[in-house]
Amino acid sequence: MTIQLYELAAAEDDHVFSPYCWRIRLALAHKGLPFESLPWRMTEKEKISFSGSELVPVLVDGDTVVTESWDILAYLEERYPEAPLGLTQGEARFVRYWTELVLHPGLSRMIVFDVFETVHPKDQGYFRETRERRFGQPLEAFSAETDRKLQEFRNAMAPLRKTLEAQPFLGGDTPNVSDYVVFSGLMWARCTSPLVVLEEADPIHAWREKLLDAFDGMARKAPFREGKI
Amino acid sequence: MTIQLYELAAAEDDHVFSPYCWRIRLALAHKGLPFESLPWRMTEKEKISFSGSELVPVLVDGDTVVTESWDILAYLEERYPEAPLGLTQGEARFVRYWTELVLHPGLSRMIVFDVFETVHPKDQGYFRETRERRFGQPLEAFSAETDRKLQEFRNAMAPLRKTLEAQPFLGGDTPNVSDYVVFSGLMWARCTSPLVVLEEADPIHAWREKLLDAFDGMARKAPFREGKI
Repeated sequence: MTIQLYELAAAEDDHVFSPYCWRIRLALAHKGLPFESLPWRMTEKEKISFSGSELVPVLVDGDTVVTESWDILAYLEERYPEAPLGLTQGEARFVRYWTELVLHPGLSRMIVFDVFETVHPKDQGYFRETRERRFGQPLEAFSAETDRKLQEFRNAMAPLRKTLEAQPFLGGDTPNVSDYVVFSGLMWARCTSPLVVLEEADPIHAWREKLLDAFDGMARKAPFREGKI
Repeated sequence: MTIQLYELAAAEDDHVFSPYCWRIRLALAHKGLPFESLPWRMTEKEKISFSGSELVPVLVDGDTVVTESWDILAYLEERYPEAPLGLTQGEARFVRYWTELVLHPGLSRMIVFDVFETVHPKDQGYFRETRERRFGQPLEAFSAETDRKLQEFRNAMAPLRKTLEAQPFLGGDTPNVSDYVVFSGLMWARCTSPLVVLEEADPIHAWREKLLDAFDGMARKAPFREGKI
């Protein structure tokens, strides 16, 4: 039976943008596991209630249901040990938390209004309400002053940049889970926001190009908003 | 022939405090390699001129001379493959750069005047001059407002904290080069500054305690200034 992956989608079913879903897509591709993408919207809580979670990704593999992206990665690594993701290396978790605590928030405070515009119209009220409660201010105010923040974001990427100056991937000579986790954060921005986050001369940009082309261009073919006004 | 390690020392020969030297000490201990510590001061350039470097650490292993801490680690990993440091894992380099670009600077802007007070008296002029040129301001001004900066530093440690909440070491179940590199940054502060950098309830504190005790308490026995007014 084909693995099923519930993924957050925008108005169009194939317009997937969640960084937590992208890392699963990439992990499945890495392991050569075909999957069926089941588009899901934030307000369709009942559709995934069987999983016990209110959020995607939700992975269904035969009788097994797994939620939470890191748990899904760990499940895939254990269940399908070929083409290892490198998840058992302790540092992969550090890269994960750096992504979730530095990269994601650094993007969020620039692109969250663009994300609002991207989500399915029926999700917009829910998205605005939950995020404005979290941020304590309107989305428009929270995502203001993009120029200054973009410089700060690029500065905060320095450890990633220096690493990719010295080696082809975070995983070393070939990509692993660390690459997919960081890249998925950048896919979140690419798929939701016109903002050009990376300069072309940035080694991170060159690395991202390689991952956009990986797996027969899976990520490059996906609908995106980057660079489109 | 015993490995020799030129290490930066304060007024007392055994008061070693350089984060780049500490990581080599710990790597040598990890591999069970005895070494002779050769105390060195910043102004003793001629003493290490044979190495082609003006900075320590400098490692001498028989006929082999290696400079630059990361190159020394790579040399040790290749020459003494038993008890691997995990240096070949791509992510180790990311942890290294995060340490050098986030952790070290976050400490530096709080403790640099304490470091000035720690270095050998004959190094103080050189230290002040080179650092003030780098920072563009007097050491006293550069290291002001410690209270605010300490909060920012602790916030910036979030990816490390979250990782150590989930697993015993950055390397996973046992420490590896990533642990030593980060820990050595904290040893720099401990050995030079009265500032108490970590709260006792912080998971990073508990992890640091384990590494202070490792290798028969090698790090704990070293002279330090933390908590001493």
